[in-house]
Amino acid sequence: MIKVHLDCFPCFLKQSIISLRLGTKDEGLQETILKSVLIEIQNADLSRPPAYTTTFIHRKIRQLIGKDPFEEIKSEYNKVALSLYPSLKSIVEKSSDPLWTGARLAIAGNVIDFGIFASVDIEGSINRALNSPLAVDDYNSFKKALYEKSNILYLIDNAGEIVFDRLLIEVLISMGKKVTAVVKGSPVINDATIEDAFEAGITEICDVTDNGSDAIGTILNCSSPSFQEIFRESQLVISKGQGNFETLTGSEKKIFFLFQSKCDVVSKELGLSTGSMLLKKS
Amino acid sequence: MIKVHLDCFPCFLKQSIISLRLGTKDEGLQETILKSVLIEIQNADLSRPPAYTTTFIHRKIRQLIGKDPFEEIKSEYNKVALSLYPSLKSIVEKSSDPLWTGARLAIAGNVIDFGIFASVDIEGSINRALNSPLAVDDYNSFKKALYEKSNILYLIDNAGEIVFDRLLIEVLISMGKKVTAVVKGSPVINDATIEDAFEAGITEICDVTDNGSDAIGTILNCSSPSFQEIFRESQLVISKGQGNFETLTGSEKKIFFLFQSKCDVVSKELGLSTGSMLLKKS
Repeated sequence: MIKVHLDCFPCFLKQSIISLRLGTKDEGLQETILKSVLIEIQNADLSRPPAYTTTFIHRKIRQLIGKDPFEEIKSEYNKVALSLYPSLKSIVEKSSDPLWTGARLAIAGNVIDFGIFASVDIEGSINRALNSPLAVDDYNSFKKALYEKSNILYLIDNAGEIVFDRLLIEVLISMGKKVTAVVKGSPVINDATIEDAFEAGITEICDVTDNGSDAIGTILNCSSPSFQEIFRESQLVISKGQGNFETLTGSEKKIFFLFQSKCDVVSKELGLSTGSMLLKKS
Repeated sequence: MIKVHLDCFPCFLKQSIISLRLGTKDEGLQETILKSVLIEIQNADLSRPPAYTTTFIHRKIRQLIGKDPFEEIKSEYNKVALSLYPSLKSIVEKSSDPLWTGARLAIAGNVIDFGIFASVDIEGSINRALNSPLAVDDYNSFKKALYEKSNILYLIDNAGEIVFDRLLIEVLISMGKKVTAVVKGSPVINDATIEDAFEAGITEICDVTDNGSDAIGTILNCSSPSFQEIFRESQLVISKGQGNFETLTGSEKKIFFLFQSKCDVVSKELGLSTGSMLLKKS
């Protein structure tokens, strides 16, 4: 399991500052809230994944600002990604192995997560995903596992990225799979909720359920009983993003993690450089 | 006056982590102390320079670790700088304007401050200082002011860098100036104390006094009455480093600030890019 590291502490604050600036222009309020985030960090449990602490932090920020700071930027990134969708769809359709291409594009889309926290190069990420080796590439196992199972639980990560997930989900459906896409139960940072699933057109192509939680990643005991049941009974899980990796790695489920390692702490734990692309089986 | 910015908060933690790792290998103690640093940051006064908060933070870290985390690394940087001294001395001696060259090298030496907090390229900094324009260059005023005044108060910044200061102080002495070099009253991060003045050979060439304080920069009301008197009566102050700039900018004294802007907050305030070199009059 990935655990909170001292190096996460400054990063918690950096992310909080970004949220605060998106959420309010009132500098006094920004200061008050950032100081209250310091209290959350004091309570950080270093035996748990960073996603636990960030969940508490961003819940507090939303409460104190009184709104979701990411609402607008999420819509914006959905629009950016949707504008790329037709050309990406055509790349998948022309591919000799659409599953490979769909999976690579789904990993490419995970770069949008950086976009909110730093500058983002979506085109560069797409090129890299399609033309370079992944740092960890369990594609053969992924393909094999998919042929063996018919029901796929697909844990979506961020807004924007969700459009890239649609490409992979469409490939899975064309392979005859039944896909259930999972979004967050309520807003947390730039994570996709049911509104984003609508905007990205995911609701038109497969079942979409929410996990009943505002936690970053997938913290099972914070999720709704119905999601816990769905997760327990799932045959195969596709898990997007670092937050889901942090919170689900070590699980006994058959999971394939598709993501880019976005921070030094997790990358070091994996023995990889920051920004590495992974298709990693549990 | 430079004031604490929200972006300083993550940076306070980053600097604390570096201090903690230098000071103890006990990870439990590192965690406990870092969490207590969070309390200091909660008390940060955003109407004052960041140096105030960092003073409290590093005082607390030293108390809780029970020693000065920077003792060894300071000596190391003094040795590195002393190994460069003969060749730098020869550059000054061969220069057609030794004052210009000495000032540039004193600014170059300020990069050693980064060295403890990031990777450092001393040779690169020397080349840049000798061969590129400064971002702010009040050298002509500096030269003129020096010809008019005979007593110079020289506020030293860091260990290692102090050897570069020696080069400039030697030029000043050769111009017939009476120089009083000022070091910190007791250890604080990598700032020079009387031990460093001994190691760098400053005590052999001019008067050295300490400011009676463990504050970062020069916080006058935290300094000893005798230093306050010396400062008040000084004719001309040469101030090294960003900490001294943060705490003394806006002073009514005639001060020349020689430093590299080492963080985004201060650089932005100055309208410069991070890492800019300055010889700036007050």
